[in-house]
Amino acid sequence: MGYEREPTTEGGAPLPRGFLAGAVRAGIRPDVDKLDVGMLYSEAPCTAAAVYTSNRVKAAPLILCQEHLVDGRARAVIANSGCANAATGEQGLADARQTAELAAAKLGVRPSDVLVASTGVIGTFLPMERVREAVSRVELSAVGGADFARAIMTTDTRPKCAGGCCGHQGEEYALWAVAKGAGMIHPNMATMLCFIATDAPLAQPYLAACLREAVDASFNMIDVDSDTSTNDIVIALANGLAGGEPLRASAIDAGHPAAGAFCSALTDCCVRLAKAIVADAEGGTKVIECTVEGAVSLADARRAAREVVRSLAVKTAVYGCDPNWGRILAAVGNSGAEMREEKAVISVSAPGRDCIYVFRQGAPLLFDEAQARACLAAPEVHIGVELGLGKGAARAWGSDITEEYVRLNSAYTT
Amino acid sequence: MGYEREPTTEGGAPLPRGFLAGAVRAGIRPDVDKLDVGMLYSEAPCTAAAVYTSNRVKAAPLILCQEHLVDGRARAVIANSGCANAATGEQGLADARQTAELAAAKLGVRPSDVLVASTGVIGTFLPMERVREAVSRVELSAVGGADFARAIMTTDTRPKCAGGCCGHQGEEYALWAVAKGAGMIHPNMATMLCFIATDAPLAQPYLAACLREAVDASFNMIDVDSDTSTNDIVIALANGLAGGEPLRASAIDAGHPAAGAFCSALTDCCVRLAKAIVADAEGGTKVIECTVEGAVSLADARRAAREVVRSLAVKTAVYGCDPNWGRILAAVGNSGAEMREEKAVISVSAPGRDCIYVFRQGAPLLFDEAQARACLAAPEVHIGVELGLGKGAARAWGSDITEEYVRLNSAYTT
Repeated sequence: MGYEREPTTEGGAPLPRGFLAGAVRAGIRPDVDKLDVGMLYSEAPCTAAAVYTSNRVKAAPLILCQEHLVDGRARAVIANSGCANAATGEQGLADARQTAELAAAKLGVRPSDVLVASTGVIGTFLPMERVREAVSRVELSAVGGADFARAIMTTDTRPKCAGGCCGHQGEEYALWAVAKGAGMIHPNMATMLCFIATDAPLAQPYLAACLREAVDASFNMIDVDSDTSTNDIVIALANGLAGGEPLRASAIDAGHPAAGAFCSALTDCCVRLAKAIVADAEGGTKVIECTVEGAVSLADARRAAREVVRSLAVKTAVYGCDPNWGRILAAVGNSGAEMREEKAVISVSAPGRDCIYVFRQGAPLLFDEAQARACLAAPEVHIGVELGLGKGAARAWGSDITEEYVRLNSAYTT
Repeated sequence: MGYEREPTTEGGAPLPRGFLAGAVRAGIRPDVDKLDVGMLYSEAPCTAAAVYTSNRVKAAPLILCQEHLVDGRARAVIANSGCANAATGEQGLADARQTAELAAAKLGVRPSDVLVASTGVIGTFLPMERVREAVSRVELSAVGGADFARAIMTTDTRPKCAGGCCGHQGEEYALWAVAKGAGMIHPNMATMLCFIATDAPLAQPYLAACLREAVDASFNMIDVDSDTSTNDIVIALANGLAGGEPLRASAIDAGHPAAGAFCSALTDCCVRLAKAIVADAEGGTKVIECTVEGAVSLADARRAAREVVRSLAVKTAVYGCDPNWGRILAAVGNSGAEMREEKAVISVSAPGRDCIYVFRQGAPLLFDEAQARACLAAPEVHIGVELGLGKGAARAWGSDITEEYVRLNSAYTT
């Protein structure tokens, strides 16, 4: 039982049974020479679930996905980069609908079984002739997952893939997931997209619950620039071809080992991808991981951890390798989480390095500054916060912020 | 009636009747050659009110102020720069208390009538011998306000003062206010401090209510780096030496013209200082003013306006003079304010320039890009958002963000 294969974030895991994928260059942005339309298809019907951006401005494809997922079922995803199809009104919605119809016609499924996702420039329309022509050229195969991962990239410097298998005794389920990253891009902000496929047999409410849990512990715990895009979406498809009884929410309560294992594996994949997004943040040089323990609740722990990795004060201090614990303490105090200064403990560390305590119980500690700086110079910097109030624990990841970030996000021509 | 004198943000307005101020260089930070301890004193007892940081980590002087303001009365303020006396535990509180005692002894007032404020490095202790020696040297005078304003500066490049008089018929009240600014500083984050003195006769609950209203419309509507310091405090003292019946909350309800005029003048002073803080933000090159109208409530309008000036996407776009309305729309959508894309209108402008509409009712507008860029190149950039849903209106101010900001906040030695 358990998570048997080390997920990969670049190579691309194999697609689970019955899934096919492929991608082509449609030329959505004629000036960018890369794959930009990808399709993912399941030979068998799937239960499906999605988590959407919290932004009140929702791009047209998200509105379409909400409509198509009312029945909790889907067979295919078509995704494009280069155009976000956001802030495009009625025309945008019609274009998203037509995109689904084109994919459905090619695959011989109902349009309502096709989900659509877009990322790229806000406020421009999809070049539908190019989309039509691209759909006709996409070749789907069992090894097309890596191309699909490339097709959704925008300013990402590398594809982000994770996968593995999990299960229990006779049951083995495969998981495949790809994502594209955050950081604002020319000429508009980027989108966080993630697509997950599995051959596990899952009742829809169980899939939806696992996905929500996985997203809350991963994509909702990362920060690059504190801006939530209009296009963020995470989609999961489960075709059940691994066989066996469908897993339901009650399976976890009943202690069904495969149910818990699936949920953990899904969360693990999402965390891996979330960290890969942060590691590839525009203008970022390191990953800041903040672990908060001893909070009065999980919600409080998440609040505090997220605020530490969001704080510009912390991001710039980490970039400058400055063991400036005052900024960390202030960020925790700023988060809204219950805290008492006289109970808080703050430490910094890095993989392979000793943990250095810098603040304890209301007072600064004497510490070896050179050692603390060495931790902060590592590509992955760990910040530990112990609140001493309860059992809530959470982890969040953020990028540092650099002059390059500002340069990338301001110095260009529209 | 009304606001009769144009407030100044540099020169320093005269202190109201009965107020004296002064400052000296104590050498709190021996490496910094500037005034760093200032005192403000009223010859007559004052009603007093304060608004404190929302950060759960509160610096020692704030805790002392809360204690000393239980009775709503005060006579003096002692403020220092160079050391925030934050995250300093019991010792820090004892030091703040001793600072109040030193000032009280010099002025012949009760320690509980002295308020204390600090700004500077977090996690270091006040050098009490230097504070003691400084207090003995401070010379108070009616023209000492400008020195006081200089003594509280940290990385501010200029003092920030506002003032004026307001009243009605026979009643004329003088207002004086100084502030110091935001932006993270070597080697810790800065503090927003503001001190206000007036000779108006004010019942304490009325003063507290006016101050809350003024702060909500000014200091709570600005954003430099989205980090709230542990030391933020706004203090107002009213000694009533202008004479006349004390103004009470009921005076506004009763339509007393001087009551409304005082509240407006106070808000105006605070807005002036808030904008001066943004204009002097570390590494900022321009002020972004966002006006939101048509929101369903004041709270929603404030939420939306604040999020626009907070968004790094917007800040970097403005820095780069890029009329990237998608980022503005996304920030509004992200703010939590009620909005409908198909009703929203977005415009950009600048003082002395035509307003350029870039988005209306769910669709991009064709606009003259060169003109839009010219607006964004101005030192003060105006962003207009009309939500078309109700009567809520608010204004917020933020700095842009630059490579210099990152450099200032990361590249230094502790």
